[in-house]
Amino acid sequence: MPQHSHQTAPTQFVDAAGIRFAYRRFGKSGGVPLVFNVHFIGTMDHWDPLVTDGLAATREVILFDNAGISSTSGEVPASVEEMAVNARAFIKALGLAKVDVLGFSLGGFVAQALAVAEPSLVRRLILVGTGPRGGEGMATLTPEAQAVFGATYADPDELWLGAFFTPSEASQAAGRAFLRRYRLRVEDRDPEVGGAVAPAQINAIGRWGAARAGAFDYLRGITQPTLVVNGNNDVIVYTVNSLILQQNLPNAQLILYPDSNHGSQYQYPSLFVADVTRFLDAVVPFPIQKDTYHG
Amino acid sequence: MPQHSHQTAPTQFVDAAGIRFAYRRFGKSGGVPLVFNVHFIGTMDHWDPLVTDGLAATREVILFDNAGISSTSGEVPASVEEMAVNARAFIKALGLAKVDVLGFSLGGFVAQALAVAEPSLVRRLILVGTGPRGGEGMATLTPEAQAVFGATYADPDELWLGAFFTPSEASQAAGRAFLRRYRLRVEDRDPEVGGAVAPAQINAIGRWGAARAGAFDYLRGITQPTLVVNGNNDVIVYTVNSLILQQNLPNAQLILYPDSNHGSQYQYPSLFVADVTRFLDAVVPFPIQKDTYHG
Repeated sequence: MPQHSHQTAPTQFVDAAGIRFAYRRFGKSGGVPLVFNVHFIGTMDHWDPLVTDGLAATREVILFDNAGISSTSGEVPASVEEMAVNARAFIKALGLAKVDVLGFSLGGFVAQALAVAEPSLVRRLILVGTGPRGGEGMATLTPEAQAVFGATYADPDELWLGAFFTPSEASQAAGRAFLRRYRLRVEDRDPEVGGAVAPAQINAIGRWGAARAGAFDYLRGITQPTLVVNGNNDVIVYTVNSLILQQNLPNAQLILYPDSNHGSQYQYPSLFVADVTRFLDAVVPFPIQKDTYHG
Repeated sequence: MPQHSHQTAPTQFVDAAGIRFAYRRFGKSGGVPLVFNVHFIGTMDHWDPLVTDGLAATREVILFDNAGISSTSGEVPASVEEMAVNARAFIKALGLAKVDVLGFSLGGFVAQALAVAEPSLVRRLILVGTGPRGGEGMATLTPEAQAVFGATYADPDELWLGAFFTPSEASQAAGRAFLRRYRLRVEDRDPEVGGAVAPAQINAIGRWGAARAGAFDYLRGITQPTLVVNGNNDVIVYTVNSLILQQNLPNAQLILYPDSNHGSQYQYPSLFVADVTRFLDAVVPFPIQKDTYHG
């Protein structure tokens, strides 16, 4: 069998819960696979190949389109919790009993809801550029997000320069490099999402983000070791929400990178891949020192 | 020459600025030394040997008592800025032109003030369990700190179980192990501080912590690569202050460990030593990806 990569992995399909799920699966098999949950209006081709291939060097990675997205059939449901039910059906249809789950932004909401719905399915969580139910500034798109997603661009890809990167010269240079990597795959590329996706996802995001009493209580029940990662200046899901996640999850570490926005993992892919790989490979991710010193 | 360690390094002395500074110096020489700045009422013997020896495996570490503390002569000055001037005099008296600086709590205030006073002396900064000038809840000791430092203990060392560790069973077990390590050095041990130290340091801490307009502006001028580390639930210098540091420093990464208080680095010494070592050893600590992908 050829060793596939982000660029060459064929799109495959599996049926579950009345949905035909599109997915790609590549990397080093034999361990616990890592399932990627993508952001608002994202498809399998919205991931950075430096991140997916970087992580695929040490584990099997699985990209997929959830219901109603790009190459997957069905409709975008009205809630994050239903998206998680669909993600669960997809993972089980692959015959997998235990996975690691990475979620970015909306995908991070889905990852949390999946860990709540089926704790035994999830070994470890990586929550990137995301926030809790009822987090700060999450009831609607932030003003910054409305500006970025509401503007028109000479090249539509440039939207991501504002959504994922800071205005600094270094960050914008990283963003332009990201856009080149993001367009490297040409064959069998996932179609951009249809017009019904954005409003449906915004509806679900708004329900997830709505403030409520005891909003963060559910986080106490997500006991999986979790790595929370973000930029220091995320204007799409405010950075403070990453702090709230880490402070309320019982077993989570937070990493914030400098001079970075919502897409910090695409600005520092080598750091991100190294941090995630260490976290996933550790026998005990956060080893508490209970012994005295024999050094 | 024997290879010294935390337990065996002799206390040495150097004169500068009219003060006789006590210090210990050990580890792998030849690179940039790492200077440790200790916390409220701390001495050279308040560091965890797992941390100092762990870092000494890859670099030279320098512990010292600042003016008026334990084996060093002089008086505790009235401000953090004057403590930094003394620290600078000490470092220069050793003939060093460039050092890495680690500061814990009050020592982190001094580390920041040192980077402001003499930027060319400081290569990289590690700020642990600390906060900015005028940070949140920093104008006085926090209510939690007042309770911990105001209580009496059967064994005085037990004060640190409340100051550095959370109430959880795992954290307290880590705390008791820390206290055993902290007492391992018996010969040539640094005396506990005298009664004048605590009020003088509280005075300086209060001046540093007092809220003011533009309190965080000075952080923009600290351009050294910086690693900010804390527990998720620091009740002595509230964790949000670590976030404020990272969000206002131009080139800083934040790491928050789970289920930990002010002394997270003593709860997870192996993680902390690994994180600090990677940060100090990296040619470029935060490599921005500007290239496209050739993978």
